[in-house]
Amino acid sequence: MKGLPSLERAVVVLSRFPGVGPKSARRMVYHLLRRGDEAILDLVTALEGLRERIRPCERCHNLSEGALCWICSDPSRDQTRLCVVEEPSDLLAMEKAGLFRGVYHVLGGRLSPLDGIGPDALHLASLESRLQAGGFVELILATNPTVEGEATAHFVAQLAESVVARVTRLAHGVPMGGELEYLDESTLYQALIGRRNFRFDP
Amino acid sequence: MKGLPSLERAVVVLSRFPGVGPKSARRMVYHLLRRGDEAILDLVTALEGLRERIRPCERCHNLSEGALCWICSDPSRDQTRLCVVEEPSDLLAMEKAGLFRGVYHVLGGRLSPLDGIGPDALHLASLESRLQAGGFVELILATNPTVEGEATAHFVAQLAESVVARVTRLAHGVPMGGELEYLDESTLYQALIGRRNFRFDP
Repeated sequence: MKGLPSLERAVVVLSRFPGVGPKSARRMVYHLLRRGDEAILDLVTALEGLRERIRPCERCHNLSEGALCWICSDPSRDQTRLCVVEEPSDLLAMEKAGLFRGVYHVLGGRLSPLDGIGPDALHLASLESRLQAGGFVELILATNPTVEGEATAHFVAQLAESVVARVTRLAHGVPMGGELEYLDESTLYQALIGRRNFRFDP
Repeated sequence: MKGLPSLERAVVVLSRFPGVGPKSARRMVYHLLRRGDEAILDLVTALEGLRERIRPCERCHNLSEGALCWICSDPSRDQTRLCVVEEPSDLLAMEKAGLFRGVYHVLGGRLSPLDGIGPDALHLASLESRLQAGGFVELILATNPTVEGEATAHFVAQLAESVVARVTRLAHGVPMGGELEYLDESTLYQALIGRRNFRFDP
């Protein structure tokens, strides 16, 4: 808005969020200004909390408020199964599914040579130490099914195969509730490759 | 996320924004944490800027960074036409349309007795002083076409009718690019009431 640099600045900063365009950012700013000082302070306090208290788990690089995250510090988790994910948000998605009771390793991204993200930019050294320390019977690759994610999975598999008995990856296939008609070819291709007996005994 | 109160707090505060649900709020938080300290500080600085520098224009209650907003301090605006809107965002919408070259009065809301918003909660006293000071030849009511907005328009019209020669309101009708088939009945009703000669000389 003409003559209101601080308002415009807030709009610019808020529109850096994924899925927030300049229009929604402006609506957010008006919302804050209408709700007043307290609403802005609430947000500032919450942001300072993020900045000051959230740090990576020393073992798995998940988000944490202590030295170890809530998974690494939970003795009931199965310490013999390791699931490798790209980001903390992927870990959260896995946890929501609820089946996996093992522990995680968060890579902090995926290999992407074009963006200058090589193996050194990911938490691979600490993964290797954890694997070398032994004790894992299975490593589950849960990187994203993108070109970079697949490349990352291959890289991690090579690290793991000599030390872990079983290296697996998430199944690709038809998503629950999805319709074949609207599914992309490569997913259908993967679903066909991965087909299982109808009477399946897990 | 279990064991991360500061993350959860940020999610709760961000989901107070209109149109931001818990899922997008969480995505926003992960985005900030991935981008790191600097991204969070940028946002904090922008918010502090809003809180410290934006204040209401002393004359029209539009958002401003000085005593008078950029419209009230612009000598080229027509000081004889006054447009009354509910919120600064409505003023901005009018400005984007670009036709109006007069000045504004921002009420800061609309009458809504059920929510305890009576005439005293709106900037009506300052509107009355401005009208009494004289010099206005037209007052344009640009409140929203809701029940409360219409009630507010009626209230303002009663204030103004004795001192301003012409009290008008925005036309209701078919929105440009809209299709009659999908238009609600009351808009079509208003469009019919407000019909004009096809060869219209403004």
